[in-house]
Amino acid sequence: MDLLTRKTFKRFKLHKKVGLPPGTIVHVGEKKVETTRITFIDYDEKDFQEKEIEKIEDSFVFKDKPTTTWINIDGLHEVKIIEKLGAYFGIHPLILEDIVHTGQRPKIEDFGDYIFIVLRMISHGDTKDEIVGEQISLIFGRNYVISFQEREGDVFNPIRERIRNAKGRVRKAGADYLAYLLVDAIVDNYFVILENVGEQIESFEEELVSNPTPETLHMIHKLKSDMIFLRKSVWPLREVINGLERGESHLIKKPTGIYLRDVYDHTVQVIETIETFRDMVSGMLDIYLSSVSNRMNEVMKVLTIIATIFIPLTFLAGIYGMNFKFMPELEWPLGYPLALGVMLLVVAVMVFYFRHKRWL
Amino acid sequence: MDLLTRKTFKRFKLHKKVGLPPGTIVHVGEKKVETTRITFIDYDEKDFQEKEIEKIEDSFVFKDKPTTTWINIDGLHEVKIIEKLGAYFGIHPLILEDIVHTGQRPKIEDFGDYIFIVLRMISHGDTKDEIVGEQISLIFGRNYVISFQEREGDVFNPIRERIRNAKGRVRKAGADYLAYLLVDAIVDNYFVILENVGEQIESFEEELVSNPTPETLHMIHKLKSDMIFLRKSVWPLREVINGLERGESHLIKKPTGIYLRDVYDHTVQVIETIETFRDMVSGMLDIYLSSVSNRMNEVMKVLTIIATIFIPLTFLAGIYGMNFKFMPELEWPLGYPLALGVMLLVVAVMVFYFRHKRWL
Amino acid sequence: MDLLTRKTFKRFKLHKKVGLPPGTIVHVGEKKVETTRITFIDYDEKDFQEKEIEKIEDSFVFKDKPTTTWINIDGLHEVKIIEKLGAYFGIHPLILEDIVHTGQRPKIEDFGDYIFIVLRMISHGDTKDEIVGEQISLIFGRNYVISFQEREGDVFNPIRERIRNAKGRVRKAGADYLAYLLVDAIVDNYFVILENVGEQIESFEEELVSNPTPETLHMIHKLKSDMIFLRKSVWPLREVINGLERGESHLIKKPTGIYLRDVYDHTVQVIETIETFRDMVSGMLDIYLSSVSNRMNEVMKVLTIIATIFIPLTFLAGIYGMNFKFMPELEWPLGYPLALGVMLLVVAVMVFYFRHKRWL
Amino acid sequence: MDLLTRKTFKRFKLHKKVGLPPGTIVHVGEKKVETTRITFIDYDEKDFQEKEIEKIEDSFVFKDKPTTTWINIDGLHEVKIIEKLGAYFGIHPLILEDIVHTGQRPKIEDFGDYIFIVLRMISHGDTKDEIVGEQISLIFGRNYVISFQEREGDVFNPIRERIRNAKGRVRKAGADYLAYLLVDAIVDNYFVILENVGEQIESFEEELVSNPTPETLHMIHKLKSDMIFLRKSVWPLREVINGLERGESHLIKKPTGIYLRDVYDHTVQVIETIETFRDMVSGMLDIYLSSVSNRMNEVMKVLTIIATIFIPLTFLAGIYGMNFKFMPELEWPLGYPLALGVMLLVVAVMVFYFRHKRWL
Amino acid sequence: MDLLTRKTFKRFKLHKKVGLPPGTIVHVGEKKVETTRITFIDYDEKDFQEKEIEKIEDSFVFKDKPTTTWINIDGLHEVKIIEKLGAYFGIHPLILEDIVHTGQRPKIEDFGDYIFIVLRMISHGDTKDEIVGEQISLIFGRNYVISFQEREGDVFNPIRERIRNAKGRVRKAGADYLAYLLVDAIVDNYFVILENVGEQIESFEEELVSNPTPETLHMIHKLKSDMIFLRKSVWPLREVINGLERGESHLIKKPTGIYLRDVYDHTVQVIETIETFRDMVSGMLDIYLSSVSNRMNEVMKVLTIIATIFIPLTFLAGIYGMNFKFMPELEWPLGYPLALGVMLLVVAVMVFYFRHKRWL
Repeated sequence: MDLLTRKTFKRFKLHKKVGLPPGTIVHVGEKKVETTRITFIDYDEKDFQEKEIEKIEDSFVFKDKPTTTWINIDGLHEVKIIEKLGAYFGIHPLILEDIVHTGQRPKIEDFGDYIFIVLRMISHGDTKDEIVGEQISLIFGRNYVISFQEREGDVFNPIRERIRNAKGRVRKAGADYLAYLLVDAIVDNYFVILENVGEQIESFEEELVSNPTPETLHMIHKLKSDMIFLRKSVWPLREVINGLERGESHLIKKPTGIYLRDVYDHTVQVIETIETFRDMVSGMLDIYLSSVSNRMNEVMKVLTIIATIFIPLTFLAGIYGMNFKFMPELEWPLGYPLALGVMLLVVAVMVFYFRHKRWL
Repeated sequence: MDLLTRKTFKRFKLHKKVGLPPGTIVHVGEKKVETTRITFIDYDEKDFQEKEIEKIEDSFVFKDKPTTTWINIDGLHEVKIIEKLGAYFGIHPLILEDIVHTGQRPKIEDFGDYIFIVLRMISHGDTKDEIVGEQISLIFGRNYVISFQEREGDVFNPIRERIRNAKGRVRKAGADYLAYLLVDAIVDNYFVILENVGEQIESFEEELVSNPTPETLHMIHKLKSDMIFLRKSVWPLREVINGLERGESHLIKKPTGIYLRDVYDHTVQVIETIETFRDMVSGMLDIYLSSVSNRMNEVMKVLTIIATIFIPLTFLAGIYGMNFKFMPELEWPLGYPLALGVMLLVVAVMVFYFRHKRWL
Repeated sequence: MDLLTRKTFKRFKLHKKVGLPPGTIVHVGEKKVETTRITFIDYDEKDFQEKEIEKIEDSFVFKDKPTTTWINIDGLHEVKIIEKLGAYFGIHPLILEDIVHTGQRPKIEDFGDYIFIVLRMISHGDTKDEIVGEQISLIFGRNYVISFQEREGDVFNPIRERIRNAKGRVRKAGADYLAYLLVDAIVDNYFVILENVGEQIESFEEELVSNPTPETLHMIHKLKSDMIFLRKSVWPLREVINGLERGESHLIKKPTGIYLRDVYDHTVQVIETIETFRDMVSGMLDIYLSSVSNRMNEVMKVLTIIATIFIPLTFLAGIYGMNFKFMPELEWPLGYPLALGVMLLVVAVMVFYFRHKRWL
Repeated sequence: MDLLTRKTFKRFKLHKKVGLPPGTIVHVGEKKVETTRITFIDYDEKDFQEKEIEKIEDSFVFKDKPTTTWINIDGLHEVKIIEKLGAYFGIHPLILEDIVHTGQRPKIEDFGDYIFIVLRMISHGDTKDEIVGEQISLIFGRNYVISFQEREGDVFNPIRERIRNAKGRVRKAGADYLAYLLVDAIVDNYFVILENVGEQIESFEEELVSNPTPETLHMIHKLKSDMIFLRKSVWPLREVINGLERGESHLIKKPTGIYLRDVYDHTVQVIETIETFRDMVSGMLDIYLSSVSNRMNEVMKVLTIIATIFIPLTFLAGIYGMNFKFMPELEWPLGYPLALGVMLLVVAVMVFYFRHKRWL
Repeated sequence: MDLLTRKTFKRFKLHKKVGLPPGTIVHVGEKKVETTRITFIDYDEKDFQEKEIEKIEDSFVFKDKPTTTWINIDGLHEVKIIEKLGAYFGIHPLILEDIVHTGQRPKIEDFGDYIFIVLRMISHGDTKDEIVGEQISLIFGRNYVISFQEREGDVFNPIRERIRNAKGRVRKAGADYLAYLLVDAIVDNYFVILENVGEQIESFEEELVSNPTPETLHMIHKLKSDMIFLRKSVWPLREVINGLERGESHLIKKPTGIYLRDVYDHTVQVIETIETFRDMVSGMLDIYLSSVSNRMNEVMKVLTIIATIFIPLTFLAGIYGMNFKFMPELEWPLGYPLALGVMLLVVAVMVFYFRHKRWL
């Protein structure tokens, strides 16, 4: 239990440096990888080049070429790298601050020359029951996309694969389409997580009725908390993608618009599924409470009925245990069997009555 | 129970292929028919032609004729057919992806030349208690309507009949009116399902008070879940039809507008009925819980009263069961009947008191 | 009970013909009168004429005269009459369908030449406790108003009276003012019903605390259901009247505007009152449940205390009922009174303790 | 109780004359004063005149003078006075109807020449616990303000005082500023009432935990009902003042704008305080129910434990009360003290166990 | 307890002077410092001057210089100072009233020449569990910022430090940037408080399950009340900052816009965190109630089972305690051990049955 809640809470933790001037680039958050890993892919319709580099400066040569360049950075704690990159591409200090200051709310900011997007990627933690979030930042301009991840992940691998193999539209389209693909990959990932949550709820719902235990209550609480967490991550996403789709930026070409509308629809679907799960989990709490009290009532009823049947019998036995000198029944030869008979009769009448009343 | 929840959940299942490039046309969902069935109807005010065809290409000749052509496809797993159709009519790959990727949220997309609509049709499953959904996609252009169903259904039959018999406006009006008729048929179907749900609620409400059992709780949970499911299917429908009705597309002629307003009104009515049912089912839970606890209280009260009456009597009997040497009462000739009399008196006083307090 | 819920539900019943072409004029709903009754009133500032006619055609002569004509039709099952009327006045078939297809949601439609309004009139059923709805349709053009009722009603009588006696503005104003008067009469009627509901709630609230019974729960459920029903009838009314008031139609003259604003205010007041009643009825459920459990707790507490006092006493009596050879107390001459004294002491201590703990 | 609810309900009572033509001026509501009292104040920057008059006509002379005139009418049952006033100032009959027909929802209507405002003033009734409402209507034109109250009140006295003493801006500003002052006085009054309610809640919250009684439940219900009542009175006020502030009327001069914004802020603050109190009172219900059930549980637990300890003891005593011929223990010289010892041991073990389980 | 609620309530206390003319400058609220402390800082890119002054007039000389002047006033009870300041800078009397009348709702007012902002700063009270609010008012014009605090605070110290050390943009930017820094410092402070609340919730959640006590309920109530309080303080902040950011004032230069957007994002994050905490605390109440009733049920069940086992045994003992002359069993040599054996059997059967039913 202890572990579970501790993890639940860490997700909502606020990291906030207080008292520093705005635009100060300080990494806030867990350090999730040892060393920063920088990879870049440069491509156009014909050519393609992929490299893992040591120094960020090695990637700068591509900026002014007409090809599309994708720089991916895994690990945010080496702020020097991010500062250099920012200086070279002319990124506003506040944006650099947001990138390294994890725990941002998903948002989009359009600076004319480049667009900045923060998203939250959701994945399973150490166990399948656990859901953890990670901040992913994207900056894209006319011919480059820079992506920042807290740790290495495999969610962008299919996109790399497509670029390598020139599959789909990606090599023909520009930086805006690549940015769309990255966002799409993150949104798609929500479906994987949600499907898993759905299965948890399903397997869980059967248990709920057949065998409600206090652990069931914890599970419900955990699911509720998961839903709050997911909701908080996804809700602003809608606005972000809507902001992209409205197409007010010259950086987003018209054909990309319909793809953005598609990913927007997926976001809405994710949100609706989360809301549906919320409703279901709420309903589960009602069922759990009813099941528990039903079981309890059943127990209490049977036990009380047993007690109720024996109390009058004990009274009858008590009567003939009295020591009065003159109790004629005690002298009767059939007194004892008669007394037992009366007791049996009392039991029969009570059982019949309880049956009639449907209490048994 | 097991079966019921399993079915409940399948309805909310997310089908999502992850990692494929956008626009990849892969069937996602249950395969509900063995072979795809393609029918088409071509008509104008005077002529009329209806055929079931093997190859989708056989339907292409009609595209450039001034007559209205309705191509209906039952079964979505043969993506080749859909791809050919898409290529011939110039449909965007993302749309084709949406058609075969069932589980879409109802939506409308206007591509200028054609309008794409996804809807959810609701019908009873194997039993009358079960409600299942099916994705229906419509594409319509200037003089054609293409409809895609997951399985063969009879909801469009009355429309076919009307075309055959030239009943109503249908033969005089164009493709937009036909599209309206299809949407209208789907919305009308909701009324049939809702009427049935209403009857379930009604028959159920009586049981709720007279004989509340744990099964009642399950029924309430099922109804609640049905309402969530229906709601999720219908809410976006309103926007869809509103999108059609606003009449920004040149594909929708003015006289069709009032018909769309009519079907919009029906959608609103469906939504309101679902909300009303939700309110009622919520109220039922309150009543169920109160009924259960009322019954329980009644049982416990009567049993406790019985116990309470006999405990003092047993005490009295215990007194005279004591073995003290010097207990004058034991020697009295009338000791025994007197003791019994006192016991009767105690019972009378207690019953009177309980009656007075309205506990009996 | 049976009857009550049955009636509750009939109100929410959906009447829907499925599979017929749109614009088919078929009466759907209960037949509430035997024969259709047609009356008309024709008036201007000076003259006035009122007649009950057999054939609807008799009313057609007035259409082109400058006077204002009010045709009222009670009973909707003779669709022939409505069809003829529709043909003569040029009413759209979908409107005629809405008129005879009862159970419509209140709405307004502006066709330029005429405006169509559907409303729900609320009245008491056979008993004062029951609330039933009726569909009222109004069509009004430049110089005529046609009203359709499901059954004869007396809610429009004061308006007829005013026309006859030339009281108020009615004879001076035109068809739009007459239409306003009809709408106003229907809205006013809601106040009568709500005042009655308010009295029910009031008389009921006292009972709730003094004597909560399972019937109380039913009453709360019924009131809740009434509120849902009323709400569903009145909410769309606001939009309807707002639609009229915005004054985009040339059929509504400027001086009528302020009267429409007045009836709009009344509608808002009706809605707010319904919401207030809803809040109150919800609060009642809380109080009911608390009262029931308070009473139950009280009973259980007293009974448990009685049992608790006697159980130790019975134990004491049991001690001296043991048959040990060597029990010195049994030989004491004062053993018996001493035992009784100890018992009394135990009772006193317990009663004192319970009092101290405020359990008694 | 009886009295309390009766008063609660009277506040929500609808007064509605049904069947009369619109614009009929009939007093609806309680007659709260015996005779109507008419006072007027006429002032400009230099001069000032205050009079109580018998006939309303005496106040008419000031209409065309450049000075500002404030006519105040206490008591609404003499409709003749209101009619004359209306005729002289050219007020629309529907407005006059609203003035005498108490129970209006707060609203504003702009007639170009004059603005009409209805407000609800809240004050304590006979006791400090009771909150009652009163309708206050204001009409103001270029150089006059007419105010209508149901009874004499002292809420406007400070304003009169300021006019007399030429304190503040009032003598320099015009009719719009005077109207603002009246509205401000009414809004300020809400703070007085709310502060009192806040104190009630505070003193009450302590009682809630220390000594929850059924009366507590009533208090919560009363507070809830008060909040509903206050909310209903204040919510529309916001729109009213917003309507004034938007400054579309030429009657409101620019410098008054900022004062209106100030009173608007106060209204928002009143609304937020009411919402906060609502949340608190809801939370109180939860605490009350928990406290009651906690206390009940405590009682039941202790009593049940007592019973549970004595039942095995009584059984042991019962064993040695059996009359078997051959029971060796009965013959032992130490049989009796041993039996008592065993009993003590049983008690000790059970008490230890209960302590261990933290049930005691 | 007493103390806690008392403090809870003081936070919601309304301070309202009633009956005074608007614009009367009277201090309303607690006097939190003994003497008013006035400090000012005057700076431009090159020079910098900081002073604590006695008389407010000493700060006036800087008004017409091109440098940026920040006047900070701690303590609001000496209204004379505020009046002089207001007169010199030409501040509207209503604004001065708002400054000294603490308890204002956060708001922004744009007077063209200067902008007025009221905010609520949150800090811990005497203990870390307590949260108290303080009103902070800001007025800023082209080249000056005036800030008003109820008491001396250290939240602005880092800003002073930055000015002294010419760190960050502050010395280069103007009064609008300084105003932003002050607002940002206040918003940042919310994160500190919220982090602390989050830790309270976390540490508390474990206790909730392991050991639910009535104090737990109080804690939940306190947290709920804290959330209501925080929410009330922060919600309007969003509008305030939005009002600044929209940039309609010429006082706010363009480069400051992005900083305002940043602080706006932080405000949204604060609001969302509060909402999340609200959801969590609500969920806690459910868990608390379930935990309590689970524990209670467990106790009652075990106790009832003990009673239920012994009652039939006592009955059996009672049977053989009867004094009938003719009871053959009593004469059997093995009667006693047999009776004991039967009793053991009964116990075994019952325990087995209860185990089987999972009641034990």
